[in-house]
Amino acid sequence: MIKLTGSFLDEITHDIPSLNYDERQWDREFACMKKIGIERVIMIRCGHKKFMTFPSATLHELEKAFIPPEDLVAMFLRLCEKHGIKFFFGTYYSGRDWLLATYDPAYESDIMCRVCDEAWERYFKHSPAFGGWYLSQEISDKRSFQVVKCYQQVGRHCKSISNGMPILISPGITGPKLGLNKRRTYPITPERHREEWDWIFGEISGIVDYAAFQDGHVEFEDLETYLKINAELAAKHGIKLWTNLETFDRDIPGTMPPIDWAKLFIKLQAAERAGISEAITFDFAHMLSPYSSYSASNLLRKYCTYAGIPIPEECQDRR
Amino acid sequence: MIKLTGSFLDEITHDIPSLNYDERQWDREFACMKKIGIERVIMIRCGHKKFMTFPSATLHELEKAFIPPEDLVAMFLRLCEKHGIKFFFGTYYSGRDWLLATYDPAYESDIMCRVCDEAWERYFKHSPAFGGWYLSQEISDKRSFQVVKCYQQVGRHCKSISNGMPILISPGITGPKLGLNKRRTYPITPERHREEWDWIFGEISGIVDYAAFQDGHVEFEDLETYLKINAELAAKHGIKLWTNLETFDRDIPGTMPPIDWAKLFIKLQAAERAGISEAITFDFAHMLSPYSSYSASNLLRKYCTYAGIPIPEECQDRR
Amino acid sequence: MIKLTGSFLDEITHDIPSLNYDERQWDREFACMKKIGIERVIMIRCGHKKFMTFPSATLHELEKAFIPPEDLVAMFLRLCEKHGIKFFFGTYYSGRDWLLATYDPAYESDIMCRVCDEAWERYFKHSPAFGGWYLSQEISDKRSFQVVKCYQQVGRHCKSISNGMPILISPGITGPKLGLNKRRTYPITPERHREEWDWIFGEISGIVDYAAFQDGHVEFEDLETYLKINAELAAKHGIKLWTNLETFDRDIPGTMPPIDWAKLFIKLQAAERAGISEAITFDFAHMLSPYSSYSASNLLRKYCTYAGIPIPEECQDRR
Repeated sequence: MIKLTGSFLDEITHDIPSLNYDERQWDREFACMKKIGIERVIMIRCGHKKFMTFPSATLHELEKAFIPPEDLVAMFLRLCEKHGIKFFFGTYYSGRDWLLATYDPAYESDIMCRVCDEAWERYFKHSPAFGGWYLSQEISDKRSFQVVKCYQQVGRHCKSISNGMPILISPGITGPKLGLNKRRTYPITPERHREEWDWIFGEISGIVDYAAFQDGHVEFEDLETYLKINAELAAKHGIKLWTNLETFDRDIPGTMPPIDWAKLFIKLQAAERAGISEAITFDFAHMLSPYSSYSASNLLRKYCTYAGIPIPEECQDRR
Repeated sequence: MIKLTGSFLDEITHDIPSLNYDERQWDREFACMKKIGIERVIMIRCGHKKFMTFPSATLHELEKAFIPPEDLVAMFLRLCEKHGIKFFFGTYYSGRDWLLATYDPAYESDIMCRVCDEAWERYFKHSPAFGGWYLSQEISDKRSFQVVKCYQQVGRHCKSISNGMPILISPGITGPKLGLNKRRTYPITPERHREEWDWIFGEISGIVDYAAFQDGHVEFEDLETYLKINAELAAKHGIKLWTNLETFDRDIPGTMPPIDWAKLFIKLQAAERAGISEAITFDFAHMLSPYSSYSASNLLRKYCTYAGIPIPEECQDRR
Repeated sequence: MIKLTGSFLDEITHDIPSLNYDERQWDREFACMKKIGIERVIMIRCGHKKFMTFPSATLHELEKAFIPPEDLVAMFLRLCEKHGIKFFFGTYYSGRDWLLATYDPAYESDIMCRVCDEAWERYFKHSPAFGGWYLSQEISDKRSFQVVKCYQQVGRHCKSISNGMPILISPGITGPKLGLNKRRTYPITPERHREEWDWIFGEISGIVDYAAFQDGHVEFEDLETYLKINAELAAKHGIKLWTNLETFDRDIPGTMPPIDWAKLFIKLQAAERAGISEAITFDFAHMLSPYSSYSASNLLRKYCTYAGIPIPEECQDRR
């Protein structure tokens, strides 16, 4: 049976509300995550445009990024060490549009590499909790070939400075629920998806270790088909396939609430039928935590019941 | 004075967040509803596209619908029996656009009838809590004549298999707050509304027992005018007029929060002036329940104070 | 250091959910506000289209406004007196578009003045809590010259009836995050902003006492530039400059949640660097209150820690 073993950390958000937690509150989250089986957390990006999660000299200088009031990387790493959870570090996301001809993959890669260097020196080289790197650009098809170049350069670099620590990506599928702007007029079919990802996986084979496609862009009835194609391609190219089991609902206009359990159930079943054994999710703190909202707490209970996980005391909702 | 005596159950949602409640939590909701005067609940639809509230063989076969993880119909019916509340069963909603020429009312009616047959056999024929049928398509004017055909076929069929159990509809008004897609370029006036609903009511007279128009599509100052027209037409055609006193706010972009009490107050007064004595609402669990959100709990208190209902212990907010 | 000394009251909302509080709940809000340094509250408008905060004969007659179920002005004024907070009264906002040629500033001013007369007679002339007038139209550039005429007429009138009580405005900046409809195709630059507000401030000098620009319409990196221009112009025209330190997040599509602390921190720093010493915010009750939401409560804690304010017992979140 598939298990949920990872969650994104999204405190440098661009589309969902900030939680504004302090360390005591994150400590509770980590305790709860650990109890229900989360073994790794993935910080979704270390910087987004001019905001950053730690005071990077590179970003301050090259991107004129703001010095942040708190060091989230240091805090998350402390909590990972405390709770025995692995930390994946998401690369910088500049916000520049890689579908435009002006996107410069060499320049983007250079910044990303430098920021990884800084973080490696500052935090990870001595931390037993460091689990790997997450390449934060969410591509979904071959039009993002410029990002594939970044994956290659940044991925090789990260592996080289860290003695081969693993690398994760979490791409999308160019389905009907992908954002309009990214989808544009590009109709995807299973055949085309297979063909394009065969090429992409070929380019990043040996660099990227784990791929966890976001599972919310296609119609529920088509998910199994796409997951099976992904599984086939991943096996062919020596990449380990996980799934990004999104716990937010993409069908509710204008907001991102915890998903209806009936939908999550269908997605879990599709992943199991495709032979996938591990899932990460976006994201525990907003969509599953008893400290987030009432419906998140309820979704956690449904998942735990399904997965045969006793609801731990730490995760009880007391409302 | 008008009383709120019914609520929709919306756990097969397409536009508001799922609550993900388990039976214990729904039990609390039903207890609270009963205490403040709710006598009937209306399950908004038994299936929506490929999702369903009970494992219908018809929908699984003809619509390739997913077998659901839980049987909501069985659960809601149990709770209705426990709390002395009547259950209205909403027909299947395929999601196919009835404004298109491709919409086939015979085919749609056939599926809906078969699903009602299944549910009748499986749940209702022996249940004292069964209160009637709800035709789930929300039409608002004559352009939806294909749905009127469905109302006739499905309505007659439901009545025939259930010894004449009552039938409810909850149409909209083609006003400025109706969804853009449904509204299109169709300007409504009170005169045109009267003319078109005179025809529609004529078509469904003797089949539909109750009509509860959604009260949120028109400007607040125009509501009384439309309700009075509806009352006049309903009387003419022998249909009992209720109102669907929407407790969510249609004026907040991108979200559906509990409505401002000042607005609900205006709508209550308009309904009273139109001589309507019973209201149903969309919906108690999200918009009025003390277990939903803070503002829902506050709205319930305002309503109860207005209606002279002592706030029962079950409905106290403890936050 | 800049201090947060004021908050809007938004219970006649047009874009965020109503709280539906009763007086006991507002009492808690006022107690909490007072403890963290709020010295004044600004009722954002006394009427909006056909809704009003007190039963104004003028609005009922001229605008066919609905008689409200509660008198918010009386209640807020009682609570201001109880807690030692000053009350600013926001003028009527008709909702008519002042960018259209049909907008009639004489007619609009006349209604606004009459409503202020009513409120002055009814509530303020004997209340020690009355703190001043708030001109509620949120203009952002010179295209709103018709509103500038209203500011002059209404401002002079309000001052004359109240023995010169102060007058506040809270304009926007025509930046990239201003609503599309208001922004239209009007690109702002710092130079153009300076030029247009030099003219506007010249027109209202001697009438308007305080200007607190909304700080969320421009990119974070540009805010300091605009605030410094505002400070320079305000000094030139004898207007006291505050800032409207928006505590909601303008970057989350479709909703207005409490802002990420990292963003508020940047805005606080920009205001300090521009020499501004006082901030008002939109708004305490939704975005900072421990009774609103979990993330609001967290944002309050971050702000209080930053500002060196001990979190008072009244403002502790107990969830």
